[in-house]
Parts: sequence; structure tokens; C-alpha cells
Amino acid sequence: MKNKIITFGEIMLRLTPENNDRFVQCHSFEAVYGGGEANTAVSLSNFGVDCAYVTKLPENGIGQSAVNSLRQYGVDISNIVRGGEQIGIYFLEKKTSQRPSNVVYNRSGSAIALATDADFDWDKIFEGVTWFHFSGITPAISDNLAGICLKACKIAKEKNITVSCDLNYRSKLWSGEKANEVMSEICKYVDICIANEDDAVGIFQINPGPEVANRNEYIAEELMKRFPFKMVASVWRTEKSITTFELQAMVYTDGRAYYSKPYYMDILDYIGAGDAYCAGLIYAYIQNYEPQKMVEFANAASCLKHTVSGDFNLVTADEVYRLAFSESGNEVQR
Amino acid sequence: MKNKIITFGEIMLRLTPENNDRFVQCHSFEAVYGGGEANTAVSLSNFGVDCAYVTKLPENGIGQSAVNSLRQYGVDISNIVRGGEQIGIYFLEKKTSQRPSNVVYNRSGSAIALATDADFDWDKIFEGVTWFHFSGITPAISDNLAGICLKACKIAKEKNITVSCDLNYRSKLWSGEKANEVMSEICKYVDICIANEDDAVGIFQINPGPEVANRNEYIAEELMKRFPFKMVASVWRTEKSITTFELQAMVYTDGRAYYSKPYYMDILDYIGAGDAYCAGLIYAYIQNYEPQKMVEFANAASCLKHTVSGDFNLVTADEVYRLAFSESGNEVQR
Amino acid sequence: MKNKIITFGEIMLRLTPENNDRFVQCHSFEAVYGGGEANTAVSLSNFGVDCAYVTKLPENGIGQSAVNSLRQYGVDISNIVRGGEQIGIYFLEKKTSQRPSNVVYNRSGSAIALATDADFDWDKIFEGVTWFHFSGITPAISDNLAGICLKACKIAKEKNITVSCDLNYRSKLWSGEKANEVMSEICKYVDICIANEDDAVGIFQINPGPEVANRNEYIAEELMKRFPFKMVASVWRTEKSITTFELQAMVYTDGRAYYSKPYYMDILDYIGAGDAYCAGLIYAYIQNYEPQKMVEFANAASCLKHTVSGDFNLVTADEVYRLAFSESGNEVQR
Amino acid sequence: MKNKIITFGEIMLRLTPENNDRFVQCHSFEAVYGGGEANTAVSLSNFGVDCAYVTKLPENGIGQSAVNSLRQYGVDISNIVRGGEQIGIYFLEKKTSQRPSNVVYNRSGSAIALATDADFDWDKIFEGVTWFHFSGITPAISDNLAGICLKACKIAKEKNITVSCDLNYRSKLWSGEKANEVMSEICKYVDICIANEDDAVGIFQINPGPEVANRNEYIAEELMKRFPFKMVASVWRTEKSITTFELQAMVYTDGRAYYSKPYYMDILDYIGAGDAYCAGLIYAYIQNYEPQKMVEFANAASCLKHTVSGDFNLVTADEVYRLAFSESGNEVQR
Amino acid sequence: MKNKIITFGEIMLRLTPENNDRFVQCHSFEAVYGGGEANTAVSLSNFGVDCAYVTKLPENGIGQSAVNSLRQYGVDISNIVRGGEQIGIYFLEKKTSQRPSNVVYNRSGSAIALATDADFDWDKIFEGVTWFHFSGITPAISDNLAGICLKACKIAKEKNITVSCDLNYRSKLWSGEKANEVMSEICKYVDICIANEDDAVGIFQINPGPEVANRNEYIAEELMKRFPFKMVASVWRTEKSITTFELQAMVYTDGRAYYSKPYYMDILDYIGAGDAYCAGLIYAYIQNYEPQKMVEFANAASCLKHTVSGDFNLVTADEVYRLAFSESGNEVQR
Amino acid sequence: MKNKIITFGEIMLRLTPENNDRFVQCHSFEAVYGGGEANTAVSLSNFGVDCAYVTKLPENGIGQSAVNSLRQYGVDISNIVRGGEQIGIYFLEKKTSQRPSNVVYNRSGSAIALATDADFDWDKIFEGVTWFHFSGITPAISDNLAGICLKACKIAKEKNITVSCDLNYRSKLWSGEKANEVMSEICKYVDICIANEDDAVGIFQINPGPEVANRNEYIAEELMKRFPFKMVASVWRTEKSITTFELQAMVYTDGRAYYSKPYYMDILDYIGAGDAYCAGLIYAYIQNYEPQKMVEFANAASCLKHTVSGDFNLVTADEVYRLAFSESGNEVQR
Repeated sequence: MKNKIITFGEIMLRLTPENNDRFVQCHSFEAVYGGGEANTAVSLSNFGVDCAYVTKLPENGIGQSAVNSLRQYGVDISNIVRGGEQIGIYFLEKKTSQRPSNVVYNRSGSAIALATDADFDWDKIFEGVTWFHFSGITPAISDNLAGICLKACKIAKEKNITVSCDLNYRSKLWSGEKANEVMSEICKYVDICIANEDDAVGIFQINPGPEVANRNEYIAEELMKRFPFKMVASVWRTEKSITTFELQAMVYTDGRAYYSKPYYMDILDYIGAGDAYCAGLIYAYIQNYEPQKMVEFANAASCLKHTVSGDFNLVTADEVYRLAFSESGNEVQR
Repeated sequence: MKNKIITFGEIMLRLTPENNDRFVQCHSFEAVYGGGEANTAVSLSNFGVDCAYVTKLPENGIGQSAVNSLRQYGVDISNIVRGGEQIGIYFLEKKTSQRPSNVVYNRSGSAIALATDADFDWDKIFEGVTWFHFSGITPAISDNLAGICLKACKIAKEKNITVSCDLNYRSKLWSGEKANEVMSEICKYVDICIANEDDAVGIFQINPGPEVANRNEYIAEELMKRFPFKMVASVWRTEKSITTFELQAMVYTDGRAYYSKPYYMDILDYIGAGDAYCAGLIYAYIQNYEPQKMVEFANAASCLKHTVSGDFNLVTADEVYRLAFSESGNEVQR
Repeated sequence: MKNKIITFGEIMLRLTPENNDRFVQCHSFEAVYGGGEANTAVSLSNFGVDCAYVTKLPENGIGQSAVNSLRQYGVDISNIVRGGEQIGIYFLEKKTSQRPSNVVYNRSGSAIALATDADFDWDKIFEGVTWFHFSGITPAISDNLAGICLKACKIAKEKNITVSCDLNYRSKLWSGEKANEVMSEICKYVDICIANEDDAVGIFQINPGPEVANRNEYIAEELMKRFPFKMVASVWRTEKSITTFELQAMVYTDGRAYYSKPYYMDILDYIGAGDAYCAGLIYAYIQNYEPQKMVEFANAASCLKHTVSGDFNLVTADEVYRLAFSESGNEVQR
Repeated sequence: MKNKIITFGEIMLRLTPENNDRFVQCHSFEAVYGGGEANTAVSLSNFGVDCAYVTKLPENGIGQSAVNSLRQYGVDISNIVRGGEQIGIYFLEKKTSQRPSNVVYNRSGSAIALATDADFDWDKIFEGVTWFHFSGITPAISDNLAGICLKACKIAKEKNITVSCDLNYRSKLWSGEKANEVMSEICKYVDICIANEDDAVGIFQINPGPEVANRNEYIAEELMKRFPFKMVASVWRTEKSITTFELQAMVYTDGRAYYSKPYYMDILDYIGAGDAYCAGLIYAYIQNYEPQKMVEFANAASCLKHTVSGDFNLVTADEVYRLAFSESGNEVQR
Repeated sequence: MKNKIITFGEIMLRLTPENNDRFVQCHSFEAVYGGGEANTAVSLSNFGVDCAYVTKLPENGIGQSAVNSLRQYGVDISNIVRGGEQIGIYFLEKKTSQRPSNVVYNRSGSAIALATDADFDWDKIFEGVTWFHFSGITPAISDNLAGICLKACKIAKEKNITVSCDLNYRSKLWSGEKANEVMSEICKYVDICIANEDDAVGIFQINPGPEVANRNEYIAEELMKRFPFKMVASVWRTEKSITTFELQAMVYTDGRAYYSKPYYMDILDYIGAGDAYCAGLIYAYIQNYEPQKMVEFANAASCLKHTVSGDFNLVTADEVYRLAFSESGNEVQR
Repeated sequence: MKNKIITFGEIMLRLTPENNDRFVQCHSFEAVYGGGEANTAVSLSNFGVDCAYVTKLPENGIGQSAVNSLRQYGVDISNIVRGGEQIGIYFLEKKTSQRPSNVVYNRSGSAIALATDADFDWDKIFEGVTWFHFSGITPAISDNLAGICLKACKIAKEKNITVSCDLNYRSKLWSGEKANEVMSEICKYVDICIANEDDAVGIFQINPGPEVANRNEYIAEELMKRFPFKMVASVWRTEKSITTFELQAMVYTDGRAYYSKPYYMDILDYIGAGDAYCAGLIYAYIQNYEPQKMVEFANAASCLKHTVSGDFNLVTADEVYRLAFSESGNEVQR
């Protein structure tokens, strides 16, 4: 059966000052569009997977630009609802040596935040669909969306669609208590859970003590005790020096953890690295890769995202494969 | 007594595609800050007048940039309230030959729109102040702001402060009925009213029939019948060819209309031309210019605004004076 | 029956110096993609019409960018053949007052120029298709393409698909003799012919004498004598002053000429204005507009193209309609 | 004998805000190099004439950039003296509708302003040279340069080199009295004088009364009474509307005035238009064109300069010729 | 008593090629304004301290831009004298791996360099002032400025104003002998001296032998033997690898040295790092921090400057505090 | 005898997305011109050596820009043949952390690829010439060029001109067999051969086994067995970390290898680093440096190229010398 993926969430206009400038010194913004699940959709589409994105966007030139930004990479946009007044916006100051990243949100009142149950006909959206993916940001945006997410998960389950969720805790959007309550219900319908330590602590208060060595393994095991996940996956980045970061990933399934090799990277753009990991994981899963190969592919996908400006991971499956598995993948041929 | 002006309203982040691009083809935005009363404040400050701007802006780098954009031109920002979550944003596609201007607003939920009466201590704000200026956009933003505006007008009146208001009807923000109701109350406290035909029709249903030749004169007379204005002023732009526009202004006072000479202009940026007119008028008024000189100065100020990118009129009183009154004002000296 | 349009031709990378710079002073190029039939496809897609584009492009990042440039506006790219080594490129110096436009081509050896008959399976391409459009540039590119065009026309005819052709004579690509020979054969299968005076003279030596007043009418009549066209349409631009151009169009059908009202325009980008006219015509035709309405819509579409940078006409059918038929179409609503 | 031209003067770094911005709003400057005689040299070199430029520039990366800016267009830079500390700089705000041009100089203390007689070995510089050109700006820069100019003229005269001078009065650099004194001496050695009305009034107090119709003719005749000029030439620009300027030129020789046809232009960059005229005149002269053809060519050269950004006239003799003398010069060939 | 700081010196226009380009390949310059004491003033103002800057700038758009660049960050500019002809300019090529930084000055003849004693009324300037800061660059600019600096120091002393001086030796502006002579006199009035090894060697020939381990400590002690400083402070940067630099600082007071922790940084812009250190020190001093806390805060301020483009340190006291004293200061909150 | 160098090859337009963007996300290209032998010519010219470049370029604005790009740095362009239709183009995605460089060529059909023997009159070109340099790319472009190269080598040999060749194997242009055949013939006339391991393996199948420690030495010895080279030189780059690369070079002559010290670099632009090495070598050779000094100078030249954007090494001999031989070469003087 042909794979067809649906992802669901909010796509925002991202405004970034050029050249690592601060907001107070910038006079123009680079404009791209992005958001957790949209990023995963583009990534999957770039891998050659049939993928549709579901959201709500206003009927104006800015909303249209968001639609086009997905369509240009082949994402199916036929299920995007048009309406509402505003698009969510976020401003990004990039991390620069000791100066941390800085994000300012202008997302309250966006079309998707104000969307209602009636906007999405999941029976129609899920026609011919094999996989449903979303992140913990979506239910955090509004109570409406929390309800819509839960409903979508239930319908997906009924239709035997695989459900994956990247927990992605956002403390600016909801409290841990609220998150725990909502996500505990939703996670009953999730097959594959992507979760890092911050998510586990923030949402489920799963806090490996300082004595725990394999922290992601511990978290995966704890999550699996609570929810009927088939797989828990995670990816984490460690600052090794002011210019070097280590990226590593884990997949936990069938009672065993599989770790990827680490990459030592210089970062061009860290936004969307987790979403790229999700896309790598989903791709590897539907290719029926073994868990070890799966985690290598997904981690390599996330690694390459760090080399691409903007939210989207503009690399092919081939490029990921070459980095993950070939000897001289990063040699230029002339 | 030294003049000190207060203007009050919303300052927004304006995002404009470069080179007359449409939204759907643009990948970066020029970022400036502007808004009716802020524009007037900057203009007055550039003319050398002591001017303070009152608004509410979030405590983040984008809010700070809006503050700095005013401060750089000498506007007193000590009365700007900091708080709230979002700044108002508007996107602008510039008119290009037959393609009209296109504005998309992202302003609902802005700090000023959600501001309350408690945010502004008008007794303190009006200390040493001689003039209070605002536009009809401010009360249109929210019911709170309508009330705050009215209150400010009343206090200003008590303190013998001159009050000027640019009617500036915005049909996207409120209905004509609502506008009529609110503005009728406010206008009782206004000394100088700036109004063009659209405003008069939109807010007060003052509609000169097609047989009326001097339409702005008619409107001024009608307005003066209803409200205790000392002066009604207006400025209007007429498209003469696809690249040429005529700009003319009128001041009506003491039962007589004074018309400026017209300018034939090519437009670089039309936003803020009315606000620049208000600033020219206020400047001319406090210089005690005769009405004819007043309307010439104010119209020249507005004309020059059309030659400056962004919302602000970045010209000196000297430059306006040279255009308005000297023979060879626009000759370069080398 | 639902309309489905196919257009066929070469899409090139267009490289334009910024700010009207000359080649010898420029250090970066604006990069867009465009080409006669691709432009028409994007325009139709922006009007909401289901439209697919057929061409051949290399399997690399530049070829992919050309594909994406179409896909972002909703053009169906599933019939684009991938292969070959190079993409066609053209460099454009924009007309600047007395300095004329200047085009330098780097298109020989492009994938589409070297494409062969085997690359295109017209039976499959034409499945469910109702309209086939191409221009005289396509057969001019290579002998192979001339043959492929003719074949496509024949198959289209068999399948009862409407065939339209914009003659678009390019003297840099072929001689008048060659053009006459090839196009005379192709035109036997064309239903709707778009032709201006240069095309008629260049390809068919149809040269209205200086005494002929209605030159486009004359040309249409002559063309209809030679070929079984149902309609001949044309659009022409006249320089009225150094900054003003007049645009007018004609549709000739059933023995009668219908003229549009003229537009007086300032030009931002003149490339693709004819292609936008074709799109307007096709759209108006499938909407079953009367000839007079048809020519008005098509001319307004072409007019708006002059206000958009790049090859593509990034306007909606609504925007064209407003310009063509409403009183105050170009007023901004605030 | 092969023509070899020498021009002598100051080349400056020109800093221009982008997009017609004012200084107070600009955050970057376009950087080009230019100056009266350098502009003429580049123009002549672009016409295929062997031309060398003489000046003094500091031995640093900015001085080198000025040298390279000339060398890229083929100007012989082997006589440029390197030394001193600073390069002259000028800031330019472009005229924008009613807002006039604005120039700020940072040129005092430049290497050439502080140059001394010992820096230039005119016997060596004039080896094989047939023409010497400079403008009235050069002697205005410093007393040293006034003396050097006079010396160069005398040596040129001895060597039978044609001497041309563009009077180019700059009231910011010297008074009319000083100019009169210095230029009266220098003009004794000048063969061809380029002078417009401002120059004649400013330097020589030759002021045609308001009743004089052919003002440039009058000036030429007056100048010829005072100095042994073989030819007086001028070019003038008249604002016809806010976007249209008329350009016309005159050559006066052998007791007769020859007028060019006028051009109606939109201006991209007016700087260097007079220098381009000089280059056109010199080129036409050494081609032995008749006076009427000469003035047409020189005026067309100046017209095209208005279409090119920066100080330099980046057009070929061919392009000038096509504009001046061919029917359809400004038609693009595709 | 409320703190009010005065800083005094030259603010220049800084022109930097984009993207680490060399001068000979650049076609535009990023334009910012900066200079030692102006940088310190902006930094203090960003920390919320009331700070005024004293200098002389020409009355034109470029001079005004320099004024505005300070005013936008809240620096009090009411004591800036307007007059003179030119602004100082410097061109900066950024260090790029093995290619060192390159600075070209165009500052001779600037308004401040030609300023005279009569330009500054120190009694008025120092009204309500608690701290006076300048650097060794100011007296190096001209003999006039040396005298003015000394006078200002004396008046400050009389008024019990704290005086701080960053020695900042510039060998391009004066010789060591001259510097020694002038600074020896000035330093009699200085309370807090900022000095690194280059300054101590260059101005005072205080050269710690190679055997001295704590070189900055040695220098501080030597300086304190000669002058009545209450505190000597220094900051130094060490290249650790081609992309990593270590930054450390020391404060010496009451016979003891306090060292900050080091930062390992990647540098975005190194200009103004010493000025940011001075601002950090002054801020910490007026907050009555203990010496150890003082040196940590000042070093963190300097560290953050390396992450901000331009001369100014655009960070808040809060951001500095977080880096210096909190555990997870550089974590983004989402 | 004065040195005069000729280099011969293809110069292409290089189009690079800004800011490490991928092709699919870029909307403008930085445009520079470059190519192996052109890069070496510019480098030599920047070192003050008289150097001419020989190629063929079309007679249009793009071809002229390529010519000017050389001329601006003083390269003698009088032997460049003008004609043909197209210029070679290459697109470059820059290496970004784990994402490798990506080059797309559009060079087939270029003027030089289609050049014939008749285009180049080597007797004339070689007048007064002392050195002839080319790379293995030139004969790889076409059979014609292979023949022309061989012919030029023979004539150079007859005229006692030193011949140097950088083997520079390009597997995209020809096979190893073809390369071996052609280069074996050409190398008979070469005095100085620049070759790295890839070249030796690719062209001559000289493959040091894994047990060989000094691989470049081994290659040099093998090459010298086959060809009458006086010297074999090489330079190689090793990735030490994701941001650090080591650069080292070797010169092998008179039976002995000389190794340079290594540089640890961060790379701004790696293109042309080998060409810069060739220029350093040639310069050092004609300065009669000893082999050890030669390899140090050449390696330092190559190192600095990595710090300059574009293909050309825009550094002076002085700057190379300072890096190679002085203690504190990369300290800024202020």
C-alpha cells in the first residue's frame, strides 16, 4: 500500500535579522515560513514521500505565501483550510557565540489558534492516508486545537493509521499540568513517540535522577510504562565548544535502545532540527529499515538540517543516505 | 510659553517587500515602524519642536526597536508604557502602476489594543504640555482606547491644551455608525480638525452632492456646524497620470477657505502623507503663520513626505520652507 | 467537463542585474525562472485553472529550482521530463529611459533543446486534457522540437483538444524562411492564434502596407485566409512618453474585430506580458466570456503583468477582473 | 597619428544610500568611484579611445579600489601617483520628486588636494599624447593644483597637444573672484571650452540678460571674445515634468551654433552627465565628425549617461551612435 | 545622588565591506557610527544609566546620522556641538582566518579634530554629572584636544567628579614620547585607569620583562606607583585556535588583583570590546559591586560585545548579568 | 630579463547563492568570474608580476564583464580572443558543516570550448614571454583545446619559455584513459608540474599504496621518472575538525622534498586555492627563492586565498610574505 502522510499544526512566518544582527539594529528581516509539523512535511516531501499538511491560514497574500512555501517542495496543500484574519509570526535572533538565541512570538490570534472543530473533516482528510504526525505544540496552541488533535488521533486509530507525535514541550504556550492532562489523553493513541529530556520533564515530570547514565533510555522506558508506544525516539545536541556541537540520537523499541554515531557540527540554523529528525525517522520506518539503520538515517537527516537556513530541511533522501552510510559522502565531485 | 506636543496612538512594525515585489514573491521585508500619530510626532521633532509620543509597547527587542525608531529622531519616549505581549504589524505591497496598494494587518491583540485606562496617567503626561494630537484610528482600535481618548481630550480641555484630531476613517477597524457615535462625542473637545472627503462621508455621512464644486470647503462648513472646531484642514491627492499625482491642501478658518498651490509629484512612498500634513499644520500654527502661509507650509510638508521611504517624514522645517516659499528650493548646491 | 490545460516549451533561468544596472557593473543577479509557455501556465494556475507544464530539465539543484518555481504556484509538474545536462539561461538588462533592453542567451545545449521524440508520451500527457498551448519559440529551438510540436498538435487534434499558439517570432533562433515552413505546417492544427505585427511579418511575410489603418485586423484577416483559425488575437504596446506606455489588445473572430480599452502604464517588468495575455485569453475563453469581455480581461491581465517583477504574472483572476471591469478597482481599502 | 588622451583631476569615493533613502535613514552605502575627468576618461576608454588618467591616490585598499575602478574599463593608470593619506569622499542623496539632490563633501585633506608640483612630470606624462582634458574643478581644489594645471596647460601647448576644459564652476570650492583670476590665466591655453550658463555666470560674470533668447550662443560668443577658443560647447537639462527632463546641447565654432535634437528622459543617475558630454565631444572631434554630427553624438552620449548608475558612462560608441543616428536604436532584438 | 556620566571623544562613520570582503572587491559598505567613548556611552545607556556624550559634528545629514545613532539608544546628545565641515571616517576589513584586520582612516580634518577650547563649556556640561570618562585616543587627535581633555579633567576634579580613562594607545595618531608627555599630565586627575599591556608599553614604556608571569598585575602596580589611581583595570584576548579566542579581565585595587573567569569565544565583531569593558566596569562600580563581581560583570559585557556587529554593545545589563552569574544564561526559552 | 607570464584556459561566470543557501532556496546569485589559469594570472598580477591571460570570450556584456574582472587587477587582456556565443557558467553551493560543496556546470558550448587552432597565434602571444602556465583542465575541455595546448607547449619550448602545468584532474570532463593519453604527450614539454594525489591517481594511475607514508613525495618521484620535470609541487588540505582545516605544501626538486609549515584555517572560500598556490610558486621561483622559502611562500599564498571570497586571490606579495615569514604578521596596526 502506498504511503501517504498527514501532518497537522501551525505554520508561521519567521522573521530573522540578517547576519546575526540583534532586533534593535536590524532594518530588514529574512522571511521564511515554518512550524514543527510543516517542517516535517517538507522534509518528507523532499525525501520523495507523498505528504500533505493540514492547517488553517488567512485568505491573503501572506497566507498564500505560506501555502506556496510548502507547495514549492511538493507538499500536498489541498487540505489547508483558508480563513481567519492573521498568520502566526515569530521573530528570531540567532545564537552568536555567548549570546543565546532569542525568540519573540506574535502568534496569539492566528487563524489556526482560533480554528474550530468544524474546520477539519478528518474522515475526508484521512482518505488513503497511512500515517498521521503532529507535535505537542499543536494541542498547546488552544483548547480547540487540543480537542481537534485528540479527535484526529481517535479517528486515525479507527482507520488503522500509524500515529506519531513529537512531544515538543513549549512552556510559553502551556503549563506542565495542562500539558500532562492533555497529552496523557492523546498519547493513548500514539504509536511512535519522539521525546527528549526537556519534554519528559516538562510534560510528564519524568525526571531521571543525576545518577542515571542513559537518560534517554530511562525516559523511553518510563514513557513506555505509561503509554502503549511501539517506539520512543530522541535526538540531542551537546555544545562541545563555542563552535562545535555534537548530535546524537536514540531509538528505543522492543525493549532495546539503538544509538546513532555522533556528528560534530558547526551550526548554520538549528531551527527545525527535531522536525527533520522526525521526518528521517518516519522515512526510515516506512522503508522498513532495521532500528540501527533507522536511527542513523534520522540522526543524519537532523545533522544536515543544521546546515540549511530556514525551518525546512532542504535535502534529499540520497544526501542523507550518503552522509549516514557512505565513506566519502561529503566529497565534491568535479 | 514653550510648546510641548503630545501625540497618542498605535505604532506598528511595517513590513514591505523590496522593489515593489508582491507578497507571494518576496523573501525579505524592509522593516520600519510607523503609525499615524507617531509619524506626526517624528515630523514635529524633525522640525525642532519638543514632542512626546504616548503608546504601549511590549518589553522585548521588537518593542524596543519601535521605541528606538522614535528616539533616534528626538521624540520624547518617556511616557511610553511598556507591557503586553505583541506589537501591531502591517504588511504593505506598494502601488505599482495599475496594481493598487495592498495592506494586510496583523494588529489585533497588540499591547496598545489591549491597553486599559490604568495604563495612562494623563495628569502626569500633560504636565507642561500645550498641544494634544491624535487621529480617528486610535479610538477605532478598541473600546478601551475610545474611552481613553475621550478622557484624554477632556483632561486636555480642562488644562487649556489645544486639541487636534485627524479624523482618518478606517472602515476595517469600525463601522460608520460606531465611528459616528464615538467621534461625535470626542469632537466636542477638538479645536482643530483634519478631515478629507472619505472621512467626512465615512464617519459623519457628510456627503457633498456631485453638484458641489468646492467639496472640501463644503465639508469644513458642515463639520463646523456640528462641532466647535476653530479650524478644519484637509489635503488631497489626485492621480494625474500613471506617474504623476497632484497634491493640494485647504485650511478653513474664520469662515474662509485658504488653498495651497498644487504640487505635481512622483510618489516614492505615500504612507504617512496625511500625518506629515498634520505636523506641518501644527508647526505652522505654533509659528503663528497666517492661514495662507500655514496651508502652503503644511502642503509642502506633505509633498516632501511622498519622497521619503517609510512612514516618517524625514525632512527639516528648513527643507519644507525652501520648497514652499523659495524660488529655487530644489536646486543642488555644489 | 473540467478544463485541464497543457503548455509546452522551454523554461530558462533568468539572471537580471539589480536596480537597472548594466552587466559590466553588476556583481549579483536576481534569479527567476521563466519562458513563454511556463509563464502562461503559472498565470492560468494563479487564475485557479488546472494547468500542467511540459518540458525537460536536468536532474540537479538548478533544474529542481525551475520545477519548484512552477510548483509553488500550483502548476502540475508531473509531466516534466528530468534529464540532460544544462538548463537554458538568459541575461536581461532592463530598458532604462533611452537605453534599450538587452538580452544575452546561454540556451544552446539545454536539456529541452536536445530532447527527442522519445522523451514525451503525448497520449499519456493529454489524458483528460482540454486545451494545448505553446508558442512559436518552442519549434524554433531545434528541429527535434519542431517535429515534437507538430506531433503534439496532431495528437491533440485527434483528441479534440483545443490548440492555441502564440506565434512569437524569434529571429535569433531561426530565419523567416525556416519559421514559415515549420509554422505553416503546425498552424493547420491550431484553433486560436495569437499574433502581433512582428510575428506576422517575420514568419509569414504578412506585411500590412503603411496605408493600412487597422493593422492587427488586417493581419488577422490574412492569417485566417491561410489557416483554419477560429480566432486571432493580439496585444500591442506603444511608447507614449519616456515613462508612459499604452497597452491595447484585439480579438478577431467570426469576421469581426473587438478592441479593448487602452491602459496607460509605467512598466516595472515587460517580460512575459504577451504570455500573460495568452493566459487571460484562455481563461476568458473557458469562462465563455463574450469576445468584448474576453479582450478586456486578457488586456487587463497583460497590463498587470507589467507591474510584477520576473517572468510570471502573479495576480489572481479577481485582481484582473477588478482592473478590467470595476470602477474603483485600484483603490486600497484600509 | 594615434590619439592618446590625458585627463587630470580628482577621483573620489562616492557613497550613495540605496533606493533614494535619505542619509538619516540609511545603513549602507553603494560605493563607486568618480570625478569629472575620471568619468570622461572611462567614457573615452569605453568608446575604444586610448586614454590615461592622472591623479594622486593613497597607497591603501581604498586608493587601490579607485585605481581598479578605472583599470577595469581599460583606462591607462600608469601615471597615477600613489601617496598621501586620504581619498576624497562625497555622499550623495539622489533627487526624488520635489526633494532635491544633496551632496556632502569629505574631500579636504585628500592626497590630490595636498599634491605638489613635484608629483607630476608632465614631460613624461605627455609622451605620445594628443589631447589634454581637465575641468575647472581641478584648479579649484587647491592653490597647488591651480598652479599645476596652468603648468600642464603650458607644456601641452608647447607640445601641440589639444587642450579642452570643462569650466564646471563649484561655488563650494572657490569664490567667483578667485575662479575668474585663475581660470582667466588657464583659458589662454585652452582650445575647446565646455561651458554652461552657471559656469559663465559664476566664473566670468558673463550673464546674458533675460531678453537674450539663445543664451548658450550668447555665452559662447562672449567667451570667444575673451579667449582664443576654437570651439565652445554646452549641454543643458530642463525639467519638463516631475519625471521628464529634456536634454539638449550646442556646439559653437567658426562663428556658428549647431544645436542637437532634444531627448526627453527619465533620470536614473544625473552625476557625470556633463563629463559624458565632454567624452562624446572629444570622441566626435577625433573622429572628424562635422559640427552637427558632433553635437548629436555628444548629446546622445550625455543622454545615455542619465540611464547608468554611478559616475561612469558605461556605454559603447556603438550604443551612442545607434541612439543618435539610427531609426530604431532602442529596440531589443530577440 | 543619581549617577550621570559624561563621555568625550570622536565618533566616526565606520564603513565595512559586507561578508568579510576585501576593500578591492567591495561595492557597498555597511555604515555604522562608533568611537571609543561613544561606544562606552551607548553601552551605559543600554544598561539604563543616564549618560551624555560630548563631541563636535558637522551640521549635515551625515553628522545628524551620527547624532541619531547615539540618540536612538537613549544617549543624551544635548551637549554635542554642531559645526565644522567633515566627520571622521574609518574603513574596516574584518579579520578572516589568517588574514588580519585592516583599518584605513579618513579622520584628519574632522570637526572634532579641529575643535577649539571655546567649543566646550565644561562648567555647563558637568552640571549634575558624577562621572567623566574618556580614552587616550581623544588627546591624541590634536593638540587642541589634548589641552581640552586636560582642562576637562581639572574641572571634573574640582567638582569631585570621578574620572576614568582608557589609555588606548594609537601609534598611528601620536608617538610614544608625545603620548607619555600628554598622558602623564592628564593621569594626575584620573581615578580609574583602564590599561592593557600595549598601552603601558606604548605610552609609559612600562614593559614587564619576559620573566613576569602576571603581566597585567605588574603593569597595574607600576602605574599606581606613578599616578594616584584608585583602580587599574584591564581586559585581554588570546587567540586559542583559528576560530576560538579566550577573553579574560583583571581589576587591581587596594593592592590586590581580581581576575575574572575566562570566556572562549567565536568573534562576530571585535571593535569596541574594550569600550564595552569600560562600560561594564563603570556600571559595576556605580552599582557598588565588590571587585570580584565587578571584573566578572565587565568581562562578560566585553564578551557579549564580540557577538554584536558594529561598534556599539547592544546588550542590556540583564543579559550581561545572566552570562556572568547565572547557570543557564544562554539557554533559549520557548 | 623582465618576467612576463602567460596563462591560458577558460574563465567562467561563477554563480553562488548568498549566505550558504542551497540552490533550491536562493533568489539571487553572487556573480564573480574565475577559472584555474585566470585565477593564477590575477594572483600574479596582484603580486606585481606582468601577466597576460589568453582565452576566448563572446562579444557581449557578460563576456566583457569577464574581461573587465581580469583587467581591474592589472592582467594584460590584449590577447583575449572575442567571439563565439556563450560563456561557461558554474553554480556553486558552498560546503556547510556536514553538507558538502556542490558544483553544477553549464559550460558545454562555451566560446573557448568551441575555439579552434586558428584563434590563437602563439608566436605573437609569446613575444617577450618568459613563462607559460596552464592546467590540466584546459586540454580536458575539448579535443581542439588539447591540440592547442600541446602546440602552445611545443612553441614555448622552442622559445625557451618555462612551462608549468597544474595537472588538476577533472573526472567530469574526461576519463582517466583520455587524460593519460593527452597529458602524457603534453608533459614532455613541462618544466614544473603541480600535482596532488587525486591528479596522480586520476590521470597517471600513480597510486601510492596505503603503506606509503610520504605520499606526495612518492608521487613526485614517480612523475619525475616518467617526465622531464625540474620540479614537482603539491599542496593539500586536511579536515581537522568541522571548522578547522590544515594546509600544507611540498616542493620536490633535485631529488629532495621540502615541506612547508602547516596552517590551521577556517575557510571562507576554498575555490582557487590550488591556483593561488601555483601563483605563489611561480612568483617565488622568479624571485629565485630557495626551495624551502619557495614552498613557504606558495603555501602562505594558498592559505590566504581561503580567506578571500570568489575565485581570485586578492592579496599582495607583501601580505603573503608577512604571513609566511614575519612573527606578528596578522596583527592589526591602529
